[in-house]
Amino acid sequence: MDDGGEQDEMTEAVMEATFEALSTHGYADLTIQRIADAFPKSKSLLYYHYDDKEDILGQFLDWLVAEFESSVEADFRANPDDPGEALEAVLDQLLPRDLDPEERTFRVAIFSLQAQATHDPEYAARFADLYESIETAIATVVRQGVEDGTFREVEPEPTARLLLAVASGGETRALTTGAEFADFREALDVVVEQTLYD
Amino acid sequence: MDDGGEQDEMTEAVMEATFEALSTHGYADLTIQRIADAFPKSKSLLYYHYDDKEDILGQFLDWLVAEFESSVEADFRANPDDPGEALEAVLDQLLPRDLDPEERTFRVAIFSLQAQATHDPEYAARFADLYESIETAIATVVRQGVEDGTFREVEPEPTARLLLAVASGGETRALTTGAEFADFREALDVVVEQTLYD
Repeated sequence: MDDGGEQDEMTEAVMEATFEALSTHGYADLTIQRIADAFPKSKSLLYYHYDDKEDILGQFLDWLVAEFESSVEADFRANPDDPGEALEAVLDQLLPRDLDPEERTFRVAIFSLQAQATHDPEYAARFADLYESIETAIATVVRQGVEDGTFREVEPEPTARLLLAVASGGETRALTTGAEFADFREALDVVVEQTLYD
Repeated sequence: MDDGGEQDEMTEAVMEATFEALSTHGYADLTIQRIADAFPKSKSLLYYHYDDKEDILGQFLDWLVAEFESSVEADFRANPDDPGEALEAVLDQLLPRDLDPEERTFRVAIFSLQAQATHDPEYAARFADLYESIETAIATVVRQGVEDGTFREVEPEPTARLLLAVASGGETRALTTGAEFADFREALDVVVEQTLYD
């Protein structure tokens, strides 16, 4: 049991180091050496457990799904009776109005992983999980808002898919044209307004 | 003047060969040799004009903007008095319900170029042009539809930006998760319906 806990702690530390290294160096310049540099524990332990950066990145995408889910749960807990606020908090995570340079570097790194996912079924399966997880989170808060009368009577799943597409399309455009996220957040706010409120 | 015509013809043939090579091999496996293989004219002429594939791809993105614009003009000419149909035709180009394998390979290749655009300002400027061009085309047809009463009284530019984000987000999700385009076209149809029609 203790070993399991140590293993979890080890994995968590590697994932946090990977997050930090991706935010600093991006994907193309990521090396296992740079992950090790951001790793506070024994570097030889890291090299013992992982062969190369690809080995770490597959696990990293799973970790990212779990991180997203726990941060969304925190958003929901912070706004238990306010689906409008809970939805805003989730959308702020997906398409924030402001982004510091490290967050942008990190998102660019994820975009590079998405480009790999177009021809790598294992990566594609992980991104499918990530999208599903986000869509489910949005649908959950939309359903709550429909039930308590905050939102109009919409179908939660198609609405969630639509909001996610707008956020994702806006992010792609901002990242690939050098534009600001704020330029495309307005489109998301417009569709939230016209879809969910009268 | 004749030289200009020959030059245009040469460029057009190179661009079509690049399109064909990208649709067959994708971006990672694209080489100037493979573009030359798809090029019907003198291969030495191609090697004389271009140093490497990057040299061709920069020009290819400009060509793609022009191709998109002329195909949209054709859609508009085919539906001069029917903004609803003209809009559908444009959206069918952006997020078709069906996609044959070559079209998918081509779109994956463009996605790889977008990943490069996240850290290459020249590519980013070209994608900015492409997005602008698409947004303008959609806004034009939306404006026409508002004026003739086909659509509700919406603001054309924000509406165009929204529709483009939905199409782009759906495409990204389909390409990076292995899903079908049709799964995300519905979100686009939903937003067209609720935004433009009563």
